Amino acid sequence: MRVGFIGFGEVAQTLASRLRSRGVEVVTSLEGRSPSTIERARTVGVTETSEEDVYSCPVVISAVTPGVALGAARRAGRHVRGIYVDINNISPETVRMASSLIEKGGFVDAAIMGSVRRKGADIRIIASGRDAEEFMKLNRYGLNIEVRGREPGDASAIKMLRSSYTKGVSALLWETLTAAHRLGLEEDVLEMLEYTEGNDFRESAISRLKSSCIHARRRYEEMKEVQDMLAEVIDPVMPTCIIRIFDKLKDVKVSADARLQGCA
Amino acid sequence: MRVGFIGFGEVAQTLASRLRSRGVEVVTSLEGRSPSTIERARTVGVTETSEEDVYSCPVVISAVTPGVALGAARRAGRHVRGIYVDINNISPETVRMASSLIEKGGFVDAAIMGSVRRKGADIRIIASGRDAEEFMKLNRYGLNIEVRGREPGDASAIKMLRSSYTKGVSALLWETLTAAHRLGLEEDVLEMLEYTEGNDFRESAISRLKSSCIHARRRYEEMKEVQDMLAEVIDPVMPTCIIRIFDKLKDVKVSADARLQGCA
Repeated sequence: MRVGFIGFGEVAQTLASRLRSRGVEVVTSLEGRSPSTIERARTVGVTETSEEDVYSCPVVISAVTPGVALGAARRAGRHVRGIYVDINNISPETVRMASSLIEKGGFVDAAIMGSVRRKGADIRIIASGRDAEEFMKLNRYGLNIEVRGREPGDASAIKMLRSSYTKGVSALLWETLTAAHRLGLEEDVLEMLEYTEGNDFRESAISRLKSSCIHARRRYEEMKEVQDMLAEVIDPVMPTCIIRIFDKLKDVKVSADARLQGCA
Repeated sequence: MRVGFIGFGEVAQTLASRLRSRGVEVVTSLEGRSPSTIERARTVGVTETSEEDVYSCPVVISAVTPGVALGAARRAGRHVRGIYVDINNISPETVRMASSLIEKGGFVDAAIMGSVRRKGADIRIIASGRDAEEFMKLNRYGLNIEVRGREPGDASAIKMLRSSYTKGVSALLWETLTAAHRLGLEEDVLEMLEYTEGNDFRESAISRLKSSCIHARRRYEEMKEVQDMLAEVIDPVMPTCIIRIFDKLKDVKVSADARLQGCA
């Protein structure tokens, strides 16, 4: 088995390590890549090759930054004859555009659920599109892929909807706990939420707030994409407020002794 | 021990039952009350008495509908010499107004956390204000009261902040699952949320959505109060969107075979 990667960031590294540990040959092109990417690929034991050779693999996984995902599909489009798996964090609409660029090969929309760094749990990948079943064959080599939805774009829509909910929860938490903090009632409100929302509430709330502050700019951009996506199916209400919260959070400095609300 | 109740709805019934089972004499005035209230009080074994006699109890608990809470405090204000416990669902500002109406007696701001119908768990009451410790003495008679915050209004603020968070979560859920439903991906999104948010996510989501649809009008009003309250301490963002969602939900009919999102 031979799997080609376009891009070699954290997602590619994680998937490639698993595939390598099951004896799969993983290839990527490192031409013009940063020293850290080259180092990462070599650590995993990836075979360095040409772009054309990557495209010739039966499975080609595109794991690049969202902004260049469409360009990557365009470059690969004429060459790929196996299946092109777009695992990038892009909107369902962009996925469908990428799909239309793969001229002869198959296409799979794939999305990683939760964090790729998720500890103690298998990285769960959901996949949609005609060739998703074909991609699922990599489960023999240590991946954890399941087919969800039907069309390309469905897997990305599921991921986006899930993450729009969790981003909204973070925004709510931040506003609620900021008000509580101003009233000197932060600990009390948190304890009451723990009481009604479950035992792991505090831990997950703190982790969400920290992460929201650190990644506020990215979440802000992502929420705008969510808003556009929702606007195709409903008249969305919540994103306007959530976007405004992340807009505020962009300017909040996370202090070393970050308070409970993550960014005091 | 003798405890007087002003108003005898579900909250009073629950608290009175507990007090009665520990031998406390519970009194209330049933003058001009509805047959169902009279029936409820009699079932619990409450002693029927005059308003003045209720006011003469060392502990007087006001458990009325929010709209008449202030009027109840005004009527009782000149008479109560023990402690007046306002357990009504009112804003911290209204609590402070009620407090100022109790001329000679003590005052306690009390709030029930979670549902009074909460099964398998003790009904948790939080209390604030100078005389909260005095009210806590009823813990000897089967209640579960704890002091939180300092001033009258703090207990209500804690409750309101907690409930503004959970109302926001309901609004988010409704919008997310409605969009997912339109895309035919409702079950998938729900399963992914279950995966990352924990095992009891589905059950609590369904219960929240049903309850949000059924009580949309009340939640809508409550969110407006939350917005006012938050505006005293921060520049609130989320309530605008949450209010708009509950405004939509007011007009949604809950069908007998209500779909997952509670109101299709």
